[in-house]
Amino acid sequence: MNVQEKAIAVREASRVLYTASTAKKNALLRKIASLLKENQDDIIAANTKDLESAREAGLSKVLLDRLTLNEQRIKQMIAGVRDVITLPDPVGEIISKVKRPNGLVIERMRVPLGAIGIIYEARPNVTIDAAVLCLKAGNAVLLRGGSEAINANAALVSILKLALEQTGFPPSCVEFIDSTDRSAVTEMLKQDRYIDVIIPRGSQSLIRFVAEQSTIPVIVHGEGNCHVYVDRTANLATAEEIVFNAKVQRPSVCNAAEKLLVHSAIAEKFLPRIARRLRSASVELRGDEAVRNILADVVPVTEEDWYREYLDLIIAIKIVPSLEEAIRHINTYGSHHSDAIVTGTKSAGEKFLREVDSAAVYVNASTRFTDGYEFGLGAEIGISTQKLHARGPMGLVELTSTKYIVHGKGNIRQ
Amino acid sequence: MNVQEKAIAVREASRVLYTASTAKKNALLRKIASLLKENQDDIIAANTKDLESAREAGLSKVLLDRLTLNEQRIKQMIAGVRDVITLPDPVGEIISKVKRPNGLVIERMRVPLGAIGIIYEARPNVTIDAAVLCLKAGNAVLLRGGSEAINANAALVSILKLALEQTGFPPSCVEFIDSTDRSAVTEMLKQDRYIDVIIPRGSQSLIRFVAEQSTIPVIVHGEGNCHVYVDRTANLATAEEIVFNAKVQRPSVCNAAEKLLVHSAIAEKFLPRIARRLRSASVELRGDEAVRNILADVVPVTEEDWYREYLDLIIAIKIVPSLEEAIRHINTYGSHHSDAIVTGTKSAGEKFLREVDSAAVYVNASTRFTDGYEFGLGAEIGISTQKLHARGPMGLVELTSTKYIVHGKGNIRQ
Repeated sequence: MNVQEKAIAVREASRVLYTASTAKKNALLRKIASLLKENQDDIIAANTKDLESAREAGLSKVLLDRLTLNEQRIKQMIAGVRDVITLPDPVGEIISKVKRPNGLVIERMRVPLGAIGIIYEARPNVTIDAAVLCLKAGNAVLLRGGSEAINANAALVSILKLALEQTGFPPSCVEFIDSTDRSAVTEMLKQDRYIDVIIPRGSQSLIRFVAEQSTIPVIVHGEGNCHVYVDRTANLATAEEIVFNAKVQRPSVCNAAEKLLVHSAIAEKFLPRIARRLRSASVELRGDEAVRNILADVVPVTEEDWYREYLDLIIAIKIVPSLEEAIRHINTYGSHHSDAIVTGTKSAGEKFLREVDSAAVYVNASTRFTDGYEFGLGAEIGISTQKLHARGPMGLVELTSTKYIVHGKGNIRQ
Repeated sequence: MNVQEKAIAVREASRVLYTASTAKKNALLRKIASLLKENQDDIIAANTKDLESAREAGLSKVLLDRLTLNEQRIKQMIAGVRDVITLPDPVGEIISKVKRPNGLVIERMRVPLGAIGIIYEARPNVTIDAAVLCLKAGNAVLLRGGSEAINANAALVSILKLALEQTGFPPSCVEFIDSTDRSAVTEMLKQDRYIDVIIPRGSQSLIRFVAEQSTIPVIVHGEGNCHVYVDRTANLATAEEIVFNAKVQRPSVCNAAEKLLVHSAIAEKFLPRIARRLRSASVELRGDEAVRNILADVVPVTEEDWYREYLDLIIAIKIVPSLEEAIRHINTYGSHHSDAIVTGTKSAGEKFLREVDSAAVYVNASTRFTDGYEFGLGAEIGISTQKLHARGPMGLVELTSTKYIVHGKGNIRQ
């Protein structure tokens, strides 16, 4: 099948999933979990081929690690599938009900989105993680993984298809684009007649490419240029812990802090303290002139720095004269992902929460909590930084749409 | 200002609306209503210029009527503004709250989308109707109306700006693109840095143009190829009333029925009856061979007919052997807008509601009810036929996004 034929097959198969019961979908997920266990040697063998080609192609250690599947990681994948089985099924939930004066009863019901396209890069575990979330929410899925993981992905997809067949679903509930050519992605992004939404997972360059080329609605997992603002009334010990955690605990992820804003009234006291702590973890400090008047050996910051997501042990620091200026700076330069205030003043916290226009806004907590598991969604297919449909961590509910169902007794419009 | 400068001005102004209180927004709306009344002579004078040019350009009677503003229609606009004042403000509403084991309190709050672009055609009343809904939901708005209504639109926008100024808002909360050139629309659709969403209102060709050109997310008000299916156990008198109402009451709108499916067991009894009734209102009947074996003078239907939205006094009829086949036909050929079943069997109704994948699905009621006012939303900015963000009639809530607000006590991630 070519790309369009696969999109059509997924659309057709989605009709069966659309009305499948929770019990039937969970039976499918249980079968996926058990087949993953039974076939783990085959999966590892396929992955070994990918790793050999990747080594020959000179991929970096980091990428080789991302690409690797071993017994431990397959165990994690299986545990992930079992977690999704325990999650409540959002499909069929009635989220509002109203009886109109004319007697019509109008309810709004959650329904599957339909057919979802997932475009992802090196990690083969996404094949299972993403497919299982889509299936649980009643959606068929068209997958396109990275070329480096082609053998492992093909092995995982054949397991998904086997599980579908053995539990009475059409195998086309999951289709996989095995062409490693980028033109296959471009072709996939034009299937708006058959695919309802595209979710890209991976580098910002992949996400930008998808957003620009797609005629299908895209849910964008954007950059995280996250801020911590330390207010004049902050407890400085708390502020130190939060800034350090937000920057250092895992610097390569989107909810790590990239910027530190400090109120001018406490800058002389706080900056030396936080500088010492951050430098103990080899963090590079960048700052404007006011910061460099207080701290030695700080790299001068450029205007462009304020927009940047470093994803590295670098932080840019600015001294601000007020809470208002901190909010203005974050709304102007930030990426509207996750931003935090550390403050001892309740009203300052509330103002920050209200006025900062980001997917997640924190008072006295680290930005690192923006995550589906930490938010209690039980799973996560990504973190949306757009404002339509889904904003912040996306779980099962964000993989559904709604429809109005209306009961009448022969009602006609006057 | 050029188009981009207007988009930037709207974005800047949106920050003020983002945090404006309900009382302040309602004061703005009251001022708009009173200024519309005070300035109605100026509005009518501006509209008269548009009508003169339109007559010279030979516009049809229907279009001239759409373009016309008179005292009566301005009264309706003012009544519409007053209705929106009474609607609850969705901004600030907490729609979920959870306390996590680590003590974090995570709430989800409704917030304005930010900056909304509206692209519309002939009717100048949309300038007020759409702007007022956007403003009430805390959004700034960039308007681009049809060139035929340029004078009336400019007069209405100057009233909006005056009201903004007199109630302490930046006048750029509403900007208007007064170039009548289509390239101005193309330029507007590329302002993804400043505009959060585009809502096109008008013909399908306008909507398609916008969806194809826009790099900003678009909420699509798609076609309505709506069906009424008369099941074997339907009360035939009820079925006759519903089919007649859905087809004839207002044939030019998207929620009017375009297709009639009839169960084969009742076709011989029902078809002559409904044919007589529809023909009494000059409806053209089209049908397949099975229909033409029962009814005389029916136009043969083509495959293409099943996909078409007529927006006219035409209906295509098909005899189906089962409920399942009716559902399959609707899901395959329909536009997923509004579809109805007439049945005396509860389980058949429930199956239809569950399995038909449309924005609004009805049991024993006319499709004509798909409308923000009829659904109790109090107002309507359009009817979405897409599955992301908003589906079905869109009111104030659909003009908002959400954000997560998180209260901690110095929480850091382990």
